[in-house]
Amino acid sequence: MFVTFEGSDGSGKTTQIQMLENYLLNEGQSVLVTREPGGTKIGERIRKVLLDMAHKQMHARTETILFNAARTQLVEQVIRPALLENIFVLCDRFADSTVAYQGYGRKQNIVELERLIEFATGGLRPDLTVYLDLSPEEGLRRKLADHLNRLDVQGLSFYRRVEAGYHQLIEQDPQRWTVIDASRSRDQIHLDIVRALQQKLPALAPN
Amino acid sequence: MFVTFEGSDGSGKTTQIQMLENYLLNEGQSVLVTREPGGTKIGERIRKVLLDMAHKQMHARTETILFNAARTQLVEQVIRPALLENIFVLCDRFADSTVAYQGYGRKQNIVELERLIEFATGGLRPDLTVYLDLSPEEGLRRKLADHLNRLDVQGLSFYRRVEAGYHQLIEQDPQRWTVIDASRSRDQIHLDIVRALQQKLPALAPN
Repeated sequence: MFVTFEGSDGSGKTTQIQMLENYLLNEGQSVLVTREPGGTKIGERIRKVLLDMAHKQMHARTETILFNAARTQLVEQVIRPALLENIFVLCDRFADSTVAYQGYGRKQNIVELERLIEFATGGLRPDLTVYLDLSPEEGLRRKLADHLNRLDVQGLSFYRRVEAGYHQLIEQDPQRWTVIDASRSRDQIHLDIVRALQQKLPALAPN
Repeated sequence: MFVTFEGSDGSGKTTQIQMLENYLLNEGQSVLVTREPGGTKIGERIRKVLLDMAHKQMHARTETILFNAARTQLVEQVIRPALLENIFVLCDRFADSTVAYQGYGRKQNIVELERLIEFATGGLRPDLTVYLDLSPEEGLRRKLADHLNRLDVQGLSFYRRVEAGYHQLIEQDPQRWTVIDASRSRDQIHLDIVRALQQKLPALAPN
């Protein structure tokens, strides 16, 4: 099963992925945790190019394409082989981030992005996508308390467009998504995620 | 005017670009020479990732997408601004290389590649493309005498498919291409290239 986590930075994705990994390990599952961009040696090289504060001249389409190069390598080298071995794959961000951030946030053409993603992923889609829902104001507040990289230097209106983009994506494919209120405690959030997973995979549900 | 050079490594592209640059400078033109992948600081970083012999696990689609990331940066940061200033741009390889090598050579889907290129270039196309025509056997012979990088380690059948791909591209858009027999002397080749350019741009022709 391939589960992805989406939402703003600071919404608690990393924490929730760790908590879900521990839950699944306790259920006797093998779990692979990875992240975008990166997750492979080649992808980490690409990630460094993307996040380098010196690359202020990077064009928006260069950025989009680089994210997708790292994505292809991650899909083909890591995710697909793991899924073939029945390993649970938890991924911190995936293709939806491109549509939300580059498409809705930076106003690139959504249809062109979807074609690029189709090429990059070879058509692989998540079985479940967890959206950690946090207001753009709260996301920005948490981010400002943290370390900033090149991609973070955006205003509130940008994050509002990203949020609206996520909600569009959720409307288009509600079966794949589960929306979780991320303003609550980590334990409450974790419980909701486990419930959503149990609905998708009844074998995990308690008797 | 945007002129690109295509053909196998060892076909003499670099030499011919230098000779054409000198010709154009003598004609009072400003000339910008660049190459793919690379030509920008970001593109050179991407070029290093592509050519690294340690990256044997690089998936074919990752490679294709990385070439296009470098291409976007080159187009938007260097080529378009130069063309707007009426500078002559000479580029060592461009989008046709992706179709010939990744499409015909590595058998990736041509339509998907054309969409990716359209996105990467924002629709920019060369005014003239010089094809330095050399048999795959001769190209490989010259290459083996030279330094090899990761992308060079291919058999003769691969280079035959690339050559067939170039000929397809030329058939589809004969107005844009000029095909030059690259087995001859550098001066003969240069003369043919200048003549082709004068046909495209009568202002350059001698009175």
